[in-house]
Amino acid sequence: MEPLQCGTSPIVGFRFTLNPMSGDFIKIIKGALKEIDTSTVWMNTDDVSTVIRGKQNHVFNVAKALTLHAAKTGEHVALNGTFSIGCPGDTSGDVYLDKDDVLLNTDSTKQYVSSQFALYPMNNPDYMAVIYREVERAKEHGVWNDSMHYASGIHGDIHDVFAFYEDSFIHARSEEHRHLVMTVSMSINSPSHGGAENA
Amino acid sequence: MEPLQCGTSPIVGFRFTLNPMSGDFIKIIKGALKEIDTSTVWMNTDDVSTVIRGKQNHVFNVAKALTLHAAKTGEHVALNGTFSIGCPGDTSGDVYLDKDDVLLNTDSTKQYVSSQFALYPMNNPDYMAVIYREVERAKEHGVWNDSMHYASGIHGDIHDVFAFYEDSFIHARSEEHRHLVMTVSMSINSPSHGGAENA
Repeated sequence: MEPLQCGTSPIVGFRFTLNPMSGDFIKIIKGALKEIDTSTVWMNTDDVSTVIRGKQNHVFNVAKALTLHAAKTGEHVALNGTFSIGCPGDTSGDVYLDKDDVLLNTDSTKQYVSSQFALYPMNNPDYMAVIYREVERAKEHGVWNDSMHYASGIHGDIHDVFAFYEDSFIHARSEEHRHLVMTVSMSINSPSHGGAENA
Repeated sequence: MEPLQCGTSPIVGFRFTLNPMSGDFIKIIKGALKEIDTSTVWMNTDDVSTVIRGKQNHVFNVAKALTLHAAKTGEHVALNGTFSIGCPGDTSGDVYLDKDDVLLNTDSTKQYVSSQFALYPMNNPDYMAVIYREVERAKEHGVWNDSMHYASGIHGDIHDVFAFYEDSFIHARSEEHRHLVMTVSMSINSPSHGGAENA
């Protein structure tokens, strides 16, 4: 049993699956991994999911770039993942915190995405207030879609949506409450979307 | 702003995406929905995900049956979802709590699955101890695979894996700490699996 300590590491992690609904799924995923720059993060893929770890700005940059690249194939793509920081059980391994802050993936192609997110501020008695505040932030960002059981709907251009997610991930934690988890489910090029007019 | 009250509802919810990596994804999902019995749960699908709500036993029964049915197509299928109970922001709507306890989906076909899960006991200062205890429970169930950043690996026959998940979901909450979230990511028929010999 490891000791239960309070997390103080600035390492952000994102464990995710990127699922193209296509028989070409291997080609699409490998193509995305090959053509974007992942040198700013530690990355590992197992038989279920992929995890990236590093500085917050690079983790979000790589997550967005992978998703955008897969989306540009035109296939229906689903991204499901969990952003995490400050877990008391986290290890100090696999850090990439010595990188500078220059973002290496700068493709600004527009892409409509529809998504849902949920925030889990751990060991924080006021966590519901944090969640309601972040829902208000989504409205200020212009990416709010709707409310639903267990999640909140966020949509718009992929760059606006990821900018909101990163902003919310910063604001939903504090020095006192460092362990924050955020789940994101994103759907792109879905036949269920009406297209950009939904934005 | 709604009032922040402690959740007392026994309603269990599961918000998920079931993604076949196939151009036939619509047919596979609709086939699964048509051929299993979902009458014991409230269900709603939007443009990103599907949610089911009801008594715990029925929510897990329907989740497993949907996954198993999609798996039997032989396609690579990914399930990603979040089980939730006791959220203070939950509504009393869409309940199916008047159903009896007879499980309506009883297909016992064996199917190897590899998965990862994470538990988030909310507003519980001892949440890390809860998590470590449930990892031990996975070992007792014989479905433990490995540990990794932000999740724990669980694998084996789909029936054993879902039985563990339901058991863990029961034990990781208490009268005092009612709000519990459990994320599950499952991969089936993946070219990354060696097959049943991994079990």
